Amino acid sequence: MNTQALLQDKPDTEILSERDMANAIRALVMDSVQKANSGHPGMPMGMADVATVLFRRFIKLDPLHPQWPDRDRFVLSAGHGSMLQYALHYLVGYPDMPIEELQRFRQIGAKTAGHPEYGHAQGIEMTTGPLGQGIATAVGMALAERMQAARFGADIVDHHTYVMAGDGCLQEGISQEAIDLAGHLNLSKLIVFWDNNAISIDGPTSLSTSTDQLARFKAAGFDVQDIDGHDFDEIAGAIAHAKASGRPSLISCRTIIGKGAPNLQGTEKTHGAPLGVAEIAAARLALDWPHEPFTVPEHILETWRDVARRGADERRDWSVRVSKSPLGEDFKLAAQKQVPATVFEELAAFRRDHIEKATKVATRKASEMVLGIVNTATDLTIGGSADLTHSNLTVTPGMRAVASGDFSGRYIHYGIREHGMAAAMNGLALHGGFIPYGGTFLAFADYARGAIRLSALMGQQVVYVMTHDSIGLGEDGPTHQPIEHLAMLRATPGINVFRPADIIETAECWELALKHSDRPSVIVLSRQNLAMLRPGYTDENRSARGAYVLRETAEPRAVTLLATGSEVEIACTAADMLRAQHKIAAAVVSMPSWELFEAQTPAYRRSVLAAAPRIAIEAAARLGWDRWIGDKGAFIGMHGFGASAPASDLYRHFGITPEKIVATARKLISEKEY
Amino acid sequence: MNTQALLQDKPDTEILSERDMANAIRALVMDSVQKANSGHPGMPMGMADVATVLFRRFIKLDPLHPQWPDRDRFVLSAGHGSMLQYALHYLVGYPDMPIEELQRFRQIGAKTAGHPEYGHAQGIEMTTGPLGQGIATAVGMALAERMQAARFGADIVDHHTYVMAGDGCLQEGISQEAIDLAGHLNLSKLIVFWDNNAISIDGPTSLSTSTDQLARFKAAGFDVQDIDGHDFDEIAGAIAHAKASGRPSLISCRTIIGKGAPNLQGTEKTHGAPLGVAEIAAARLALDWPHEPFTVPEHILETWRDVARRGADERRDWSVRVSKSPLGEDFKLAAQKQVPATVFEELAAFRRDHIEKATKVATRKASEMVLGIVNTATDLTIGGSADLTHSNLTVTPGMRAVASGDFSGRYIHYGIREHGMAAAMNGLALHGGFIPYGGTFLAFADYARGAIRLSALMGQQVVYVMTHDSIGLGEDGPTHQPIEHLAMLRATPGINVFRPADIIETAECWELALKHSDRPSVIVLSRQNLAMLRPGYTDENRSARGAYVLRETAEPRAVTLLATGSEVEIACTAADMLRAQHKIAAAVVSMPSWELFEAQTPAYRRSVLAAAPRIAIEAAARLGWDRWIGDKGAFIGMHGFGASAPASDLYRHFGITPEKIVATARKLISEKEY
Repeated sequence: MNTQALLQDKPDTEILSERDMANAIRALVMDSVQKANSGHPGMPMGMADVATVLFRRFIKLDPLHPQWPDRDRFVLSAGHGSMLQYALHYLVGYPDMPIEELQRFRQIGAKTAGHPEYGHAQGIEMTTGPLGQGIATAVGMALAERMQAARFGADIVDHHTYVMAGDGCLQEGISQEAIDLAGHLNLSKLIVFWDNNAISIDGPTSLSTSTDQLARFKAAGFDVQDIDGHDFDEIAGAIAHAKASGRPSLISCRTIIGKGAPNLQGTEKTHGAPLGVAEIAAARLALDWPHEPFTVPEHILETWRDVARRGADERRDWSVRVSKSPLGEDFKLAAQKQVPATVFEELAAFRRDHIEKATKVATRKASEMVLGIVNTATDLTIGGSADLTHSNLTVTPGMRAVASGDFSGRYIHYGIREHGMAAAMNGLALHGGFIPYGGTFLAFADYARGAIRLSALMGQQVVYVMTHDSIGLGEDGPTHQPIEHLAMLRATPGINVFRPADIIETAECWELALKHSDRPSVIVLSRQNLAMLRPGYTDENRSARGAYVLRETAEPRAVTLLATGSEVEIACTAADMLRAQHKIAAAVVSMPSWELFEAQTPAYRRSVLAAAPRIAIEAAARLGWDRWIGDKGAFIGMHGFGASAPASDLYRHFGITPEKIVATARKLISEKEY
Repeated sequence: MNTQALLQDKPDTEILSERDMANAIRALVMDSVQKANSGHPGMPMGMADVATVLFRRFIKLDPLHPQWPDRDRFVLSAGHGSMLQYALHYLVGYPDMPIEELQRFRQIGAKTAGHPEYGHAQGIEMTTGPLGQGIATAVGMALAERMQAARFGADIVDHHTYVMAGDGCLQEGISQEAIDLAGHLNLSKLIVFWDNNAISIDGPTSLSTSTDQLARFKAAGFDVQDIDGHDFDEIAGAIAHAKASGRPSLISCRTIIGKGAPNLQGTEKTHGAPLGVAEIAAARLALDWPHEPFTVPEHILETWRDVARRGADERRDWSVRVSKSPLGEDFKLAAQKQVPATVFEELAAFRRDHIEKATKVATRKASEMVLGIVNTATDLTIGGSADLTHSNLTVTPGMRAVASGDFSGRYIHYGIREHGMAAAMNGLALHGGFIPYGGTFLAFADYARGAIRLSALMGQQVVYVMTHDSIGLGEDGPTHQPIEHLAMLRATPGINVFRPADIIETAECWELALKHSDRPSVIVLSRQNLAMLRPGYTDENRSARGAYVLRETAEPRAVTLLATGSEVEIACTAADMLRAQHKIAAAVVSMPSWELFEAQTPAYRRSVLAAAPRIAIEAAARLGWDRWIGDKGAFIGMHGFGASAPASDLYRHFGITPEKIVATARKLISEKEY
């Protein structure tokens, strides 16, 4: 499309048409929210004009091919304005968004969920609602675009990432992490519209903020513009400028929240509740929109459908380019995100080798060794760390960092921004073509919580490499020692949480993280060295069962020791002591993944857990362990926060020792007997 | 002290003296980290000059009275530089920080923990380490100062809050939330030193950031300065200017990380590891510091001790002013943070009244009613919300908002900044004189995790009012519906998590939150209306036991239903159905606080849980419930994320219904019998 031509020669009818197009959005929004008796009309009505110009004149998408890789990405960061997205989808003609779906807004099973939910309807690029996630995830998408363009050329990859963000998105701290990264990497095809309506839920934004947002974004390296968000020409001019600016862009759109509702517009009353029958009637008059609810006149609908026709043409042209490109096949392969089978063969050889060598290393080091194999065998993986590269051990030989102006690398220095990293990884995964992994300390999963939850909710293959996983990190003390973090992650639906016990399980857990492409994985790793515990090589990935009997007893079990990660070694020592000193037969069960164990058959679970009394050993909070130890079991772990001291002192101080296990086992057994 | 006089007439010996004073810090830091074989020398050595000038010429503290309310607050936001704080404490003469403590740096039981830990040593204003928390908490301290000054006058309350922040603190998103709030409220006595050494762990900060920090802080309303962090006069001039600026201040201190270590300074190698014996020897030469490890010459030590002498004089003057002030007694009372006993009497009357009336309201509404009583009876409580005031129902009649230039109110519009809110509340609590509470949706506890954990670790009385606590919020859908959040909070040590079932328990839980002054409380509240369930009034606060038998059975129990919050009502309905339809005797146990129940005697716990099979009902993740339901129990709740629909549809959809409970109970009982 020739934007300039449109701008210069646009006749009055064009303005009229865009006004009508925008009012179609407003009417659909009002009616849907009213029918649902729930929802947020203010944002969609305020941003209807911007959305109309963006979609009418600029955006590149084909509703019949919603997964077209070179489509523009549209991210509604202000997710409560979901009806804007649904109205747009109906108007441009996504086949799965008939008018009936708008009429079922916010009802069970509808595609029109309260907030845009990834996977519920086509064309929803991500789940939004928790504020700031959209803009931060879009940074990852825009980064993915640049990285794919560097690999496959602008013939195949050349699209924009458009974000609509509200005051909330800009106030949330994650937005700073995101724009700092975007500005630093100069993600010039990221264009953020700020719905600058000066209203938040409590009232005017002047209640809580005075920040000069334009200056702030400029400080981060953005091109910034300030426009009337209801002036079609200004909007179009700003978008054209942003596309040409060579920098990531912020367009501050001064808007009136709820615009069109004559008595309520400009106030927080339009934000999150239906306008009411009377106000909607008044709005129909004010907007000169005499049409029935959920009815858009044919000529207006047809103008909207032009967006899809233009997109279909662009997609066809693109297909021709891909078929002609020498990199076209590689591009299609990357889109499938299939890790080559050779990786798993090499990892099996790695396991065999290190079982023979009995390699004793920290599991974070084992993870680095595994990544050396993975990153050599495939370039799908994109590494990174929140400024803890040499602690998380996430970089492997030959990996170059991505930098402004050179996107051919595959390692991201995310900076001291765990939340921004997690969101950017979601964006890399959602965009397609990459499997991102990124490191931080497990304790700082706290900072990334909001985005980790979205990884799970969206079922994205993002791998969190979380090292320094317990008091075993030692001197840094309680702020850095995770206690409740395993419980927090295990309680979250849709995540595989792995805590491998040694180098062998680390390789197995990484293999599982690569194979489970429909969910995020968190691989929890030790700072300290851990002995290799596996008795012998088997083809089977034993961690795939979630838990397994690492050491069976010759006689019937008197006690079963359940442990994960660094505590499995302690459990093994205790089992030895029990046998040698007390002739007590203690089995040791390693439980690298509760989720995968839960997914096994009851018979398998029973065979692992067995009937003898059980003791769980984990240097973390107890919460959740009762599921496995049962009524007569015991837990040895943390009962409060950690402390600052060398790791071995801490294990003694907190009583997570073989001696404590032995004493507890003897007590349990005697209680059982008498 | 007359700062200007010092600046103008400072003789050369003064510079020499300050150089020596700063080198004393450097030497102590190098030696302590080396002895511990662990720690972070880079930041303290880089900021030694700034710290020296700040402490020598400006700071107001009395090491013999570390709790003096009008002391300046010094917050080491870059907490890994803890040795800077410990060295300063030794040098100015805190009695609990003899040289031996520096020699025990990072050892078990030492006051010199890896990161500054609140409560471990006197004069540590807060626990730092997780980056960005310091600056964000300091905003709360500076706010508390302004609010106390508004109440008691500048005669009694007139101090500064000084923060030392690193690149990490500024990159973390929480810093944006903090400075936006600080700038908006114009907390002019907040002075932030940025240790601008251009180095982070991965290497030069240019790897990950290009933000113009001065422009960014200016955009937030800060006065900004850029100085040579090794020029004593520039430092002093900048601090004097900042104090006079009338705005919150950022002083960018260009420093050399690890300054003094001739071969390593200016590189990330000095950040987080001992310098090594050879480099320390070389540094001693370079710094002209020929003294033995852990030895500071008497004349230098004496110069440092002048800081304490000046502070002692200032404190004595202040004491005289307080004794003369008509508000002096009130000030002392506020410092004790004692909620008047009348509050609890009124809350008891409230309970009696609403038991009689059988008041059915959402527990968030009940919380608002309780707060009406509390906020009338005491002005210790400071309310607020992260822009969800009318959803969280956290404001009560007559509460005025704090605003720039008028700090006499007691309600804070924290903006859409959950993390910043939580940190600011920590600061309000740490400062003294206030009991802060603040609201958001429970799902967005995610965003505030980092600061909530610090509330717990520091044992601060902060009350989190977290509403919209389950799928019961309905249409907003899975992003807004907490699933794992109760488990996340319950797994965290040191927090009381309350989920009241009705208006009566809400009053009881608030009472407990006000009484437990040594820890944070999270009060988890429903959006939807809930029936009043209490059979009759008792003086006893039944929630204080954590769990209790709400409905006992006439015959021996056949089954016990355990539930919290909105699911207790469902359990009661199920119990009625079981009796009426199946003649099954089902008891109902309400469990508003697992922590308090865990703290009861085993005998009490057994009497509540009893021997019959148990079913837990909670619209949340199962994790943790096995502790209470035991081997033969069942759980009815959520097994994945929520969905968008009206609440009643969701309860049916996810099978959290009386019918499901009845069926499960019958199954459990039949399994038991056969």
